[in-house]
Amino acid sequence: MTQQPLPTRIEEISPTRKSTPWSRYEAAVLGFRNYWYPAMLSRRLRRKPVAVQLLGEKLVFVRSQGKCYALENRCPHRGVPLSIGTCEFPGTHTITCRYHGWTFDLSDGLCVAAITDGPDSSIVGKVRVSTYPVEERKGLVWVFIGDQKPPPFEEDVPEDILDEKAVLGIRVTQRIGNWRLAAENGLDASHAAYLHRNAWLTVFRRFPAYKTNVLPEISNRSVGYTQGPSVLSGEYPALGRWPQNEQQWWKNPRKRPTVSALHLPGFLRVDPFPTPGIVHFEWYVPSDERHHHYFQISVKKTTALNAWRFRLAYWLWWRWLGHVDFNGQDAEMVQLMDPFYSEEGGWGRERLFRPDVVLTAWRKYCHENARAAQSRE
Amino acid sequence: MTQQPLPTRIEEISPTRKSTPWSRYEAAVLGFRNYWYPAMLSRRLRRKPVAVQLLGEKLVFVRSQGKCYALENRCPHRGVPLSIGTCEFPGTHTITCRYHGWTFDLSDGLCVAAITDGPDSSIVGKVRVSTYPVEERKGLVWVFIGDQKPPPFEEDVPEDILDEKAVLGIRVTQRIGNWRLAAENGLDASHAAYLHRNAWLTVFRRFPAYKTNVLPEISNRSVGYTQGPSVLSGEYPALGRWPQNEQQWWKNPRKRPTVSALHLPGFLRVDPFPTPGIVHFEWYVPSDERHHHYFQISVKKTTALNAWRFRLAYWLWWRWLGHVDFNGQDAEMVQLMDPFYSEEGGWGRERLFRPDVVLTAWRKYCHENARAAQSRE
Amino acid sequence: MTQQPLPTRIEEISPTRKSTPWSRYEAAVLGFRNYWYPAMLSRRLRRKPVAVQLLGEKLVFVRSQGKCYALENRCPHRGVPLSIGTCEFPGTHTITCRYHGWTFDLSDGLCVAAITDGPDSSIVGKVRVSTYPVEERKGLVWVFIGDQKPPPFEEDVPEDILDEKAVLGIRVTQRIGNWRLAAENGLDASHAAYLHRNAWLTVFRRFPAYKTNVLPEISNRSVGYTQGPSVLSGEYPALGRWPQNEQQWWKNPRKRPTVSALHLPGFLRVDPFPTPGIVHFEWYVPSDERHHHYFQISVKKTTALNAWRFRLAYWLWWRWLGHVDFNGQDAEMVQLMDPFYSEEGGWGRERLFRPDVVLTAWRKYCHENARAAQSRE
Repeated sequence: MTQQPLPTRIEEISPTRKSTPWSRYEAAVLGFRNYWYPAMLSRRLRRKPVAVQLLGEKLVFVRSQGKCYALENRCPHRGVPLSIGTCEFPGTHTITCRYHGWTFDLSDGLCVAAITDGPDSSIVGKVRVSTYPVEERKGLVWVFIGDQKPPPFEEDVPEDILDEKAVLGIRVTQRIGNWRLAAENGLDASHAAYLHRNAWLTVFRRFPAYKTNVLPEISNRSVGYTQGPSVLSGEYPALGRWPQNEQQWWKNPRKRPTVSALHLPGFLRVDPFPTPGIVHFEWYVPSDERHHHYFQISVKKTTALNAWRFRLAYWLWWRWLGHVDFNGQDAEMVQLMDPFYSEEGGWGRERLFRPDVVLTAWRKYCHENARAAQSRE
Repeated sequence: MTQQPLPTRIEEISPTRKSTPWSRYEAAVLGFRNYWYPAMLSRRLRRKPVAVQLLGEKLVFVRSQGKCYALENRCPHRGVPLSIGTCEFPGTHTITCRYHGWTFDLSDGLCVAAITDGPDSSIVGKVRVSTYPVEERKGLVWVFIGDQKPPPFEEDVPEDILDEKAVLGIRVTQRIGNWRLAAENGLDASHAAYLHRNAWLTVFRRFPAYKTNVLPEISNRSVGYTQGPSVLSGEYPALGRWPQNEQQWWKNPRKRPTVSALHLPGFLRVDPFPTPGIVHFEWYVPSDERHHHYFQISVKKTTALNAWRFRLAYWLWWRWLGHVDFNGQDAEMVQLMDPFYSEEGGWGRERLFRPDVVLTAWRKYCHENARAAQSRE
Repeated sequence: MTQQPLPTRIEEISPTRKSTPWSRYEAAVLGFRNYWYPAMLSRRLRRKPVAVQLLGEKLVFVRSQGKCYALENRCPHRGVPLSIGTCEFPGTHTITCRYHGWTFDLSDGLCVAAITDGPDSSIVGKVRVSTYPVEERKGLVWVFIGDQKPPPFEEDVPEDILDEKAVLGIRVTQRIGNWRLAAENGLDASHAAYLHRNAWLTVFRRFPAYKTNVLPEISNRSVGYTQGPSVLSGEYPALGRWPQNEQQWWKNPRKRPTVSALHLPGFLRVDPFPTPGIVHFEWYVPSDERHHHYFQISVKKTTALNAWRFRLAYWLWWRWLGHVDFNGQDAEMVQLMDPFYSEEGGWGRERLFRPDVVLTAWRKYCHENARAAQSRE
């Protein structure tokens, strides 16, 4: 056993505390502004505009002559969603509101015509809807939510994904629960050994009872953790050995631990998952206070025939074993935690334990490094 | 082109405004009090009392020996709805509460017996439920909601409908959205040319691109509008001609414009609609803050065999083309506007354009002329 | 007629009153603390823990080696419900949280292990979940909700039920409505003669029109009432005789009145119901502000073969006639009263009548005798 003394920062968390060293993180109920986020699968955005709520804001995505645009999904006139509008002027990059024909330029959001008021309408050029920078890469539409000048796309999206040879298997779902509970579950070093024991993915894997010496590892780009040896089974005082009867011959411990790291504004990198050779990413994109869009991305660097071999394996095996079944156990926990944090004061009542030092490191990291917190005015 | 300068009153509407010249209209979230309203189809009120919410108030309608009555739908004892009650004393105009047999006179709401406390119950004559004046005319039950002495019924209900020769085709539905959004959509001069282009009713009609010179016309009884020539197609700067390719031989412009006028407390008269010879009325009767009862009435003045011919045409054609399909497009817009006005501060954030001068005239007209605004205490 | 003067305490209830002589009762939105309550049928609690909300608190019931336990259904770590947990240490009385393996002693709620942090986890012995005293008797699991030392079980649960010879027929349902409305409906002396006239149970019973001289009877353990002769039919001024035409030969008045008494913290005893020889109990156990668990218990003191004869009769007849049909009429009233009391200020607006003197006696009895009122902080 290589157990270390309990890190002192845990002591800061007590039921009587009045403030936390991560107040900006606690404020970020709707996520962090001024970042690039994945918004949807490219193949979902075709002729019809698509409405999406991100960080509590209502957006509409439009594809015009192949190019993607994002605007505030609300006509400034009477508030009708632009997502039920169409393009009335072929050859232009515009969208026209279904109600009175107010027409907006997709690139800057400016009102360029109000059809039913005639060509000389004085509203033209006077009103504008917000627009959002958009990039389409690797089968995904990405959007910048913020008010600053957007940083280079490559600064926010990891090169593993943007690499020319990267082949992606992607699953996008809506999940219940605040985005921070999902993010913390993703980084959480300790639940895997207990929660995921009975996943289909791990039928042949022998899980340890616990990890030792879990400590945060903070880089300038992310928060991960280091760990000591895992212990296959423990003798718990007054309770006995756990797990018992687990010497099944077909189960073997993993040779190398996976490496996980959580990045701002809220995405996780796991290498490897669900199987050696595949790098896993997951984004927790806030929708509203109690829901998030969950993007799961399996990445393999390969080309040509092997790319198709990977796609086949993803759709035949890894999607169901990893993204659906294994991560579905996480989804259930995130949903079950949400009432505690959203209704019952969980942020002030939670009692953390030793391995959660990784999570408090993440919270402080966000507090110190995040560009801007988003919450309802 | 006969475009006029933008009416100055539009200038009053800006995102920074603190108050509007129609504050009583903004207050009328639940409609206007002291008016006669249509409540339901006569044929819906038979032996069983019917509960309806109007202007946020809970009412029960009762038919007793053919005559209609309306009362507050709440026994003053323990609050049980009187609408589950029955008449226990045949020959009297009373309703008895299902729970303890408290019995109320339908005409004045006075408690005239408490069956389970015996004939000498001291509660008799001590409590009263509110009553509402009721008229049954032309296949509809009408009710006066207010606290003043009701004006003559004919003052609030147009003579087109009450005329002896008037034959009515009526549709009653529940719709989502505050009643004012429905009323403004009804009067709105500009959306028709764009929104209703693809309705089944207008397959053979060539729509103009826009109307010119739309100006409010305020009488002492209603708000309508006048308009200049309609323009079939326009050349929109930097965008091009609209509509394009609309020279279909089977489409012809309408010869005469329809005349629309919006009346207090919230009903529209359109002459003609959906076809020459039929006058259309629609009432927007507030149910609660975000729902209204929508009464559509097609009126034709005729008698005898022609009356039956009109009824047949209404049920075969006009109901489906006009009331269901065409007005269904309006219903969708009203529902889509509602979150903006009810949740997102739309009354202060909307940006109106030139043709909306008709709506602001309506708002000011209500502000100055409405009997009383209704909202939750 | 033996009518008495209206009891003066009724005068205290008027629409303009500012306070009532039963303020502690009005405060008890979620019931009364420091009492034993029935929680569920024994046969419902098997291998899997069962989550139940009682008095607004979230509980989990666990059966371990036959014995029942109740704990706060919320892991102190991240708030995940313990009801999805299992026992990981066979032979111990513990439950382990599904998320990180925090393990709690069922008898005192102490955290005795955190599996994923290893045997030396410092959280062990540091955190605790609330526990609730539990008794399992007569096919029911009972729980003490409170913070005082629980009184002897026999003090809160009537001996009719605990008697060795008592055979029970039990029905447990969830009902809509605040628990106090259900309790008052149970004691209410006056509604039965009107509301339950058309129940299947009473096809052969001739109901009186009203009871006379209904007066509360307060013992040191409960509130019941006495009554004068019942009157089969009355002549109501200006309305006429009621009921009319009720001389059906197959209907006969009941020989003896039933005796009802309402006990703290909210259960009713009716002797006999639904038929002579059976004593009826019903508990109104608050779930949240607008729902309660409804326990109906038919009790017969008998043994051996007669016990089975009673069980057969209960399941063939009395359950359907009494618990389902007859009491279902009460359930409807309780549900219909709830919006008045929960949303429309009913506690201050209700207008009580003479027989309700029994209810006001109950309210004052609770105000003076209840151990502690429960409401949200």
